[in-house]
Amino acid sequence: MSLQIADKTFQSRLFTGTGKFSSASLMEESILASGSELVTVALKRVNLTEKEDDILSYLQHDCINLLPNTSGVRNAKEAIFAAQVAREALETHWLKLEIHPDPKYLMPDPIETLKAAEELVKLGFVVLPYIHADPVLCKRLEEVGVAAVMPLGSPIGSNKGLKTIDFLEIIIEQSRVPVVVDAGIGAPSDATKAMEMGADAVLVNTAIAVSENPVQMGLAFKYAVEAGRMAYEAKLAPMQQQAVASSPLTTFLN
Amino acid sequence: MSLQIADKTFQSRLFTGTGKFSSASLMEESILASGSELVTVALKRVNLTEKEDDILSYLQHDCINLLPNTSGVRNAKEAIFAAQVAREALETHWLKLEIHPDPKYLMPDPIETLKAAEELVKLGFVVLPYIHADPVLCKRLEEVGVAAVMPLGSPIGSNKGLKTIDFLEIIIEQSRVPVVVDAGIGAPSDATKAMEMGADAVLVNTAIAVSENPVQMGLAFKYAVEAGRMAYEAKLAPMQQQAVASSPLTTFLN
Amino acid sequence: MSLQIADKTFQSRLFTGTGKFSSASLMEESILASGSELVTVALKRVNLTEKEDDILSYLQHDCINLLPNTSGVRNAKEAIFAAQVAREALETHWLKLEIHPDPKYLMPDPIETLKAAEELVKLGFVVLPYIHADPVLCKRLEEVGVAAVMPLGSPIGSNKGLKTIDFLEIIIEQSRVPVVVDAGIGAPSDATKAMEMGADAVLVNTAIAVSENPVQMGLAFKYAVEAGRMAYEAKLAPMQQQAVASSPLTTFLN
Amino acid sequence: MSLQIADKTFQSRLFTGTGKFSSASLMEESILASGSELVTVALKRVNLTEKEDDILSYLQHDCINLLPNTSGVRNAKEAIFAAQVAREALETHWLKLEIHPDPKYLMPDPIETLKAAEELVKLGFVVLPYIHADPVLCKRLEEVGVAAVMPLGSPIGSNKGLKTIDFLEIIIEQSRVPVVVDAGIGAPSDATKAMEMGADAVLVNTAIAVSENPVQMGLAFKYAVEAGRMAYEAKLAPMQQQAVASSPLTTFLN
Repeated sequence: MSLQIADKTFQSRLFTGTGKFSSASLMEESILASGSELVTVALKRVNLTEKEDDILSYLQHDCINLLPNTSGVRNAKEAIFAAQVAREALETHWLKLEIHPDPKYLMPDPIETLKAAEELVKLGFVVLPYIHADPVLCKRLEEVGVAAVMPLGSPIGSNKGLKTIDFLEIIIEQSRVPVVVDAGIGAPSDATKAMEMGADAVLVNTAIAVSENPVQMGLAFKYAVEAGRMAYEAKLAPMQQQAVASSPLTTFLN
Repeated sequence: MSLQIADKTFQSRLFTGTGKFSSASLMEESILASGSELVTVALKRVNLTEKEDDILSYLQHDCINLLPNTSGVRNAKEAIFAAQVAREALETHWLKLEIHPDPKYLMPDPIETLKAAEELVKLGFVVLPYIHADPVLCKRLEEVGVAAVMPLGSPIGSNKGLKTIDFLEIIIEQSRVPVVVDAGIGAPSDATKAMEMGADAVLVNTAIAVSENPVQMGLAFKYAVEAGRMAYEAKLAPMQQQAVASSPLTTFLN
Repeated sequence: MSLQIADKTFQSRLFTGTGKFSSASLMEESILASGSELVTVALKRVNLTEKEDDILSYLQHDCINLLPNTSGVRNAKEAIFAAQVAREALETHWLKLEIHPDPKYLMPDPIETLKAAEELVKLGFVVLPYIHADPVLCKRLEEVGVAAVMPLGSPIGSNKGLKTIDFLEIIIEQSRVPVVVDAGIGAPSDATKAMEMGADAVLVNTAIAVSENPVQMGLAFKYAVEAGRMAYEAKLAPMQQQAVASSPLTTFLN
Repeated sequence: MSLQIADKTFQSRLFTGTGKFSSASLMEESILASGSELVTVALKRVNLTEKEDDILSYLQHDCINLLPNTSGVRNAKEAIFAAQVAREALETHWLKLEIHPDPKYLMPDPIETLKAAEELVKLGFVVLPYIHADPVLCKRLEEVGVAAVMPLGSPIGSNKGLKTIDFLEIIIEQSRVPVVVDAGIGAPSDATKAMEMGADAVLVNTAIAVSENPVQMGLAFKYAVEAGRMAYEAKLAPMQQQAVASSPLTTFLN
């Protein structure tokens, strides 16, 4: 059941983020409860001038791999610059590539993302691009060498769940790199559903961070992702138009 | 996190059934994997003449409570008779009351179900009626003394999931007895969703029994139900119309 | 394309109501624009002591048939009394039977509704009961002689649309009396959808009355219902899992 | 209520296509019944060598404007060539730009579409690009000067309806050029819904062409689009979580 992306193997298929937690220690505890082994962190939140940055110190666990992201950049050029800063600062060539020029819905830019991905792959990065659930864009990103694709379920932070199911299905069917459903997952049931469909992993941040009990919610997502993966492997029963009794109709009364 | 119904306490909020498994031993193994402590069995499937009935012998575990059901009866009179036979044969006064005269969709009969429930409560049964997701009917059943209500998600065996969400929400809000979502749950994500909404438990049969790997699917549902319950207790984050970045917009580039 | 219920024939399959309009003349104009020939009116809103009641005088058009309703009653006994008052006052034996004891969601009571319907049919009424989308209840009402069934799409006044589609489909398939989808229709697209599914008519009130322009909304619903009925008759194309080009792939470039 | 795109004004907000009809005369009759004034035609289906091409002769009506499309091309270069051939052959500089390299789901390519659009606008074409429901791509296409954007509801020919609602809402909110919902509209209710949301027009082909009665279905879509537009202008009533009675609760019984 382990997941391979580029040169790393993950036991957990739940990726998490570091934004919106009320404290760094609550963030740490929640992420540990979730079992997540890949944690994305915005470059902006890293204190680049001090050796022992506040957030990073809470993420120093053997089980946790950092995935710096370029949140806040508006085009390929800014993304490439940010990626290089991140590689230097966080000592990892893994990168979550996010380019969303629109400040209201934070929808990703397909053109700049492909351009940046192509360049970053050449520069030796392990690139995981955050994108709309666009099957053709996914294939083009795959062709330029990204390590995984990260299509969205619904706009970042909306908690609306999987509003792109019909397109995620096509992406999962066609992709030859891992598919990580990112953004919009607002409840464990959304994560379970994404995994049942065959997604390789999900990334969850807001839904854990802004819960009243982020630690317990982290654990809930851990179980939800495991449940979904197990169900995918065990194969779901097909839907039926007509009811089919679990219990055969009895005749004992006749 | 335990659930109380009538005089019993359950650690697991996943109820299961015994129909459609390819073998009795696979049924036993799947139910044990699911952690279910309440298992419904159709009276018809019980061999009433032999002491060691085939199906029952596979269910003789300390952790498993039997919940005989009246599947196959067409009206209150038949249901009451079947209930009494079941009490005698299975030595339990717990009863899942199912009256569905329609052989195609197996939708329950609200009139006969209320009539039978009232009578069965008087006869000392712990009654759990299977019904449509009808908020008014649930209140009337509660008034006559049922131990829990079991509204459907979608037609039995359809695996269509939760097609009655708007009405389940009203039922959960108004009910003073436990609400067990029954029928139609086709995937662990459906179970997680029902629990997130505040259902007290779910009953799953077909989705486990007809999976390619019922034992693993039983375990998937166990985790899915736990994830949903934990999320309900930890409280879900609200949906947002507008995106809200997990990572604050960076300004480091300016 | 005309619709027959009991002894009347309707050219329009759009039924309307009289509540929530900002003025009686706006109500009149909107109903005329909608082309509706059957208009439900709450007994309470009728001034029983004066010959020329305000609301009724606005509904005196040859094309409009009145359908008094029992909105506000809490059980069969009250419904039967109200029905008799309505028959006397409005000089029609047509009746929309509504029994909803719950003041918050106004969900109908299946038990009291069946009881009242049976009695009212015996008393010579043409009974159109408002009910949950319960296929078995619909059949039982049919058996006691109602002229049509009126299952809900979603709670009255919620404008949530068709939240009971899976059950409306069963009802439409099984019913031998006309099926009128009532309650919850919040937009013309909901009405079109109900008619496409094969509903015989829809009843719309809130969505017209509380629009900013009720007259134009009445006209919009008229067209929407006609569009849905025409599509039902012309038969919809089936859904495809795979894309199928409208335009065959060209080869002219090769 | 008229719609302006580039230099043309349309009374009808229903655009249609010419594929999949069982005969050219049935196509002609259906399009005329639909009232459509803009009809897309695949270049491949036009007989370029004869003056009186079969399909075109059926479309020679004053009310019909042709919209040649580039269906079948796989990249920007092919699209630009096809567009020039079409301009020559059909004597119009209007163009529906379609680039879908994937033969199974026919999903459009965002990168090649933007590249071709930019070039075609420079070449004097009135460009209407068919794209995924990608809000950022829509803005970028607007910036290079397209006359309208044509985001999809679901894959071409799938008849699955509006599976991209959450993104269409963002596009409609942000766009300064007309938004035409294209592809996937399988029933008149889908068209009504798109128009209620504020789409400027819809394009329908398969749902009309493969109906059992395309002429009547064309008329159904005409009414459906008009109903949706009227509802949009009259403004829909908001959804309510709680029921609100159309008829105030009566007190006449007390």
